[in-house]
Amino acid sequence: MSSSAAAAAEYMARALQLAEQGRCSTHPNPRVGCVIVKDGRVIGEGAHLRAGEPHAEVHALRAAGAAARGAELYVTLEPCSHHGRTPPCADALIAAGVAKVCVASIDPNPKVAGSGVQRLRQAGIAVETGLLEAPAQALNRGFFSRMQRGRPWLTLKLAASLDGRTAMASGESQWITGAAARADVHRLRAEAGAVLTASGTVLADDPQLSVRDYATPRQPDRVVLDGGARVPATARVWGEGAARWWLTAEAQPAPAGVENLVIARDAQGQLSLQHALSALAQRGVNELLVECGPRLAGSLMRERLVDALIVYLAPKLLGEAARPLLTLPGLETLAQAPQLRLLDARSVGQDLRLHYVPLW
Amino acid sequence: MSSSAAAAAEYMARALQLAEQGRCSTHPNPRVGCVIVKDGRVIGEGAHLRAGEPHAEVHALRAAGAAARGAELYVTLEPCSHHGRTPPCADALIAAGVAKVCVASIDPNPKVAGSGVQRLRQAGIAVETGLLEAPAQALNRGFFSRMQRGRPWLTLKLAASLDGRTAMASGESQWITGAAARADVHRLRAEAGAVLTASGTVLADDPQLSVRDYATPRQPDRVVLDGGARVPATARVWGEGAARWWLTAEAQPAPAGVENLVIARDAQGQLSLQHALSALAQRGVNELLVECGPRLAGSLMRERLVDALIVYLAPKLLGEAARPLLTLPGLETLAQAPQLRLLDARSVGQDLRLHYVPLW
Repeated sequence: MSSSAAAAAEYMARALQLAEQGRCSTHPNPRVGCVIVKDGRVIGEGAHLRAGEPHAEVHALRAAGAAARGAELYVTLEPCSHHGRTPPCADALIAAGVAKVCVASIDPNPKVAGSGVQRLRQAGIAVETGLLEAPAQALNRGFFSRMQRGRPWLTLKLAASLDGRTAMASGESQWITGAAARADVHRLRAEAGAVLTASGTVLADDPQLSVRDYATPRQPDRVVLDGGARVPATARVWGEGAARWWLTAEAQPAPAGVENLVIARDAQGQLSLQHALSALAQRGVNELLVECGPRLAGSLMRERLVDALIVYLAPKLLGEAARPLLTLPGLETLAQAPQLRLLDARSVGQDLRLHYVPLW
Repeated sequence: MSSSAAAAAEYMARALQLAEQGRCSTHPNPRVGCVIVKDGRVIGEGAHLRAGEPHAEVHALRAAGAAARGAELYVTLEPCSHHGRTPPCADALIAAGVAKVCVASIDPNPKVAGSGVQRLRQAGIAVETGLLEAPAQALNRGFFSRMQRGRPWLTLKLAASLDGRTAMASGESQWITGAAARADVHRLRAEAGAVLTASGTVLADDPQLSVRDYATPRQPDRVVLDGGARVPATARVWGEGAARWWLTAEAQPAPAGVENLVIARDAQGQLSLQHALSALAQRGVNELLVECGPRLAGSLMRERLVDALIVYLAPKLLGEAARPLLTLPGLETLAQAPQLRLLDARSVGQDLRLHYVPLW
């Protein structure tokens, strides 16, 4: 007997909640949760936690055991049909004898893309798709972006005073925002597959770009855009604990543990941002957090590569001589100004965190 | 029989609510509300609505009639003891035979300042003070400021893009914010005794500074700071419907209906802001809304004359060439930056309205 629509939505919501367990750790895989139900009772739950480890469905099937036969299975992403680092989940579901599978979203991975559902149906399993599809896709906005656009989901993080300034004229910028906002940035880093900055920020602030003020099972990879190959081997961003990519215009001898990626130049002679993002997508980066100065921030906006903009707004005023939030050369009329939509505003300590999406 | 403490707080809260009826109209008087209670039942209510018209207590006594004898009276501000445009309320309360008077706040007006309470007590009436005193004083923050500091409560209103810009390099600024935010500014104007701007804004934008998008029984007075006496007689700010003050360094022949006030120069040769505020307080301005450009905004911050800062933050980016929110010459280190505290953040249409108070 199939569950009612309301019950089915609750099971899928639970599966989405389980998927959150992998928020900071599934890279480069998607976050997936699974619930197995029989006779109105949950008999197995699972979440994918780390690449190379079992998928959500396998964890849930193990928990359910022999009772999985004839059960309903709710999963947030289409079960895989290909041999990756683990065997295909579709086969495991068929072997376990589940009667019905409810899938929130089809897997955008071209290696799956409907073939998982097809294989289940061919085995006589009833399959429904699309339940809570929107939140399921939002959960993996980075994975969908990488599969469908060939680039990571890009979140641009900025911190500024109320009058939109990021540093004094002298360059002094520590700290504009408070401790709570800076810890919140560590959460953003933990949720990202990689964190990217530019050489100017490395040379000015020597940031580590690692997660320290937030508990995470995985450190995000670190990426430095460095057209002039100016970043020294001693930079703290090259510290151990994560993959590190040095993006330069010409091949460079990289410090130990750092991989040098040669990126094409764009028409202005700068490293091509599109090429850089494509290279990172090829290396499995689903979500990219960018923490940078005004020039790269402006370039990302101009090239419409920003998917989300997070601004920490500090309750202070720095005046007109202080440094700008971003540069937008060539912008002369209000009609040309990039427009945003505010999704969320909340206090983080004494600061305000604003979450915008650009309206292209 | 006296009301319980909880009941008394409810009656006073109702009196505060009644006082709101005069929010946009009592200038230069304070906003006051009054409730008369007998045997646990409200027998009269009143609010002060306009200078020259009856005070809140008189309205409430009229409503209660003869039943006021032996009743309790709740009033948000100490009853007056002097002959102004209307006779002293304290005498009316005594004549009506009320048994007890509960006052939220003593009147800071030196003509009253406790003498109203004293007169009631001398007549044998029981008087309690201080119930809901904080909200009662907040309701009249402008009146208290004028009486205690000799200057109006000053609200600085600014509108900016997310990156803190108020106009393009060309000066184009209409419109940074949306229609809902601009209508909200009309509410701020309606609640203010007067609206002040500087000659630069008048010459650039020719604003009316009147209330059009908000229902109000009274137009705020209009004030223009104009050290160079550059504002022409044809400026729209001089339109009829409110008192208009032209603040200049030397006496000027004023347009019809406009009063010229000569203001001292400060050490920098600018019109003295302190003198200007003092002159406005002497003319009865309790709350002053300032809508101005970056120079005056910066000067008000530097001289610590801002009591509240309201910023409408538009979801757009204008870039580093656009005009700044405010100028703060001489500010060189983060430690010197004016600090604020965020009191409220809310969406107004597509924009965000941020309410800060400076921390001096």
